[in-house]
Amino acid sequence: MSPADARRRFREGLVTSTAGWSAGYAQANLIAVPHDYAFDVLLFAQRNPKPCPILDVLEPGQFTGPLLGEDGDIRTDVPAYQVYLDGEPVQQVADATDAWANDLVAFLVGCSFSFEAALLEAGVPVRHIEEGRNVPMYRTDRGCRPAGRMHGPLVVSMRPVPAECVADAVRITSRYPSVHGAPVHVGDPAGLGIADLSAPDFGEAVTIHDGEVPVFWACGVTPQAAVMASRPPLAIGHAPGHMLVTDLRDSALIVP
Amino acid sequence: MSPADARRRFREGLVTSTAGWSAGYAQANLIAVPHDYAFDVLLFAQRNPKPCPILDVLEPGQFTGPLLGEDGDIRTDVPAYQVYLDGEPVQQVADATDAWANDLVAFLVGCSFSFEAALLEAGVPVRHIEEGRNVPMYRTDRGCRPAGRMHGPLVVSMRPVPAECVADAVRITSRYPSVHGAPVHVGDPAGLGIADLSAPDFGEAVTIHDGEVPVFWACGVTPQAAVMASRPPLAIGHAPGHMLVTDLRDSALIVP
Repeated sequence: MSPADARRRFREGLVTSTAGWSAGYAQANLIAVPHDYAFDVLLFAQRNPKPCPILDVLEPGQFTGPLLGEDGDIRTDVPAYQVYLDGEPVQQVADATDAWANDLVAFLVGCSFSFEAALLEAGVPVRHIEEGRNVPMYRTDRGCRPAGRMHGPLVVSMRPVPAECVADAVRITSRYPSVHGAPVHVGDPAGLGIADLSAPDFGEAVTIHDGEVPVFWACGVTPQAAVMASRPPLAIGHAPGHMLVTDLRDSALIVP
Repeated sequence: MSPADARRRFREGLVTSTAGWSAGYAQANLIAVPHDYAFDVLLFAQRNPKPCPILDVLEPGQFTGPLLGEDGDIRTDVPAYQVYLDGEPVQQVADATDAWANDLVAFLVGCSFSFEAALLEAGVPVRHIEEGRNVPMYRTDRGCRPAGRMHGPLVVSMRPVPAECVADAVRITSRYPSVHGAPVHVGDPAGLGIADLSAPDFGEAVTIHDGEVPVFWACGVTPQAAVMASRPPLAIGHAPGHMLVTDLRDSALIVP
């Protein structure tokens, strides 16, 4: 299905995780904040490029852009949204038009789904795809570099990788810096302050087989964790796993 | 001379082009704008990463940061500043303390000086160094992607490169994306709307020998050209060629 068709179905009301949708096209994390917070959020992203690689920014009053096609609308084209008031997640909605404010600035942040096809092609298993689950995500004890009023912990996604494939997983994902790039941590979850891999903060736990190493990548949910910590009056993000399907090809994200 | 010593001498009043100062350390372009314009400028940089690669941002009331050392002061440590009112260059000063406003946000932008040592090492001549001049810079007819109120032309620097060295020049500078990276244009200046290479808009003209090709790199003066086009009430930049000498090593800017 083309990204435009996928977005149209979500706009018409379909609510689903977007894993596997429009293969070959990049999916994006969403975080929208009032204009007054936009500099702080963009600087936070600039200072923390691994968790917050910016693919594009829609300024106040802009509801579409090159990533969403001519008839796109960021308020309706994501399958599900999380609305935050003063940093508290108050509501999940399938259509954010009523919650949207005129001065919101929408940030589209790269998503590690873009490198998963390349991992699979190279024979690196991707467990959450095998098991039909959302990727497990964890808050870490590692703080991001703050910017103005924005601060918060690094959030990571985890994929169990067979020991003999870890080097390939690093090498392959390094080539995708705009969708989180190389892992931030390979091995012991305690090193990131993660107590229990079976209890992720977002998404779903996956099986780790003998001989596999947990590998952690910076995650685009980090800006939402920063919203929870920094408490801007209003913010709207995607619901975890329910991403914006963009017109950008994954192949365009590979660096030489 | 260490970057800290260089900055101390500039702080004490020395006014000089910084070409060749503190070899091995990155130099930075400066553009400081009122907080009200900071989001637009940061988004302009995000949307135009080749001319505006951000090395760091000092928020309002911050006068130093990791690039300037503990006792650094962005208002005094650049050898010469250009002050703009409503986009008009009104004054060059050696100390910007009096012109500075409390709500200014200072952007430090990568400078192509950082890859020149690597070019020389590989046997690629760098003419403006040979001739002891400032690099020639030109406004092009290519517009940057606008952001909010910020818009303006791409500015480029030019280095004449012998035909047999062009591939090396591309390959080497590609490895330095945070200081403008690969050239944006190789060859005919008319393709960028440049009528006369002997009349640069900033810096000084250099000799082009037979068998050499003019090679154009995006230039960190682009944000100052955007200030002139977009006319924020106040802006302070470095005077062309009079850069901030930072504590960042050029070698830290190389991508694998």
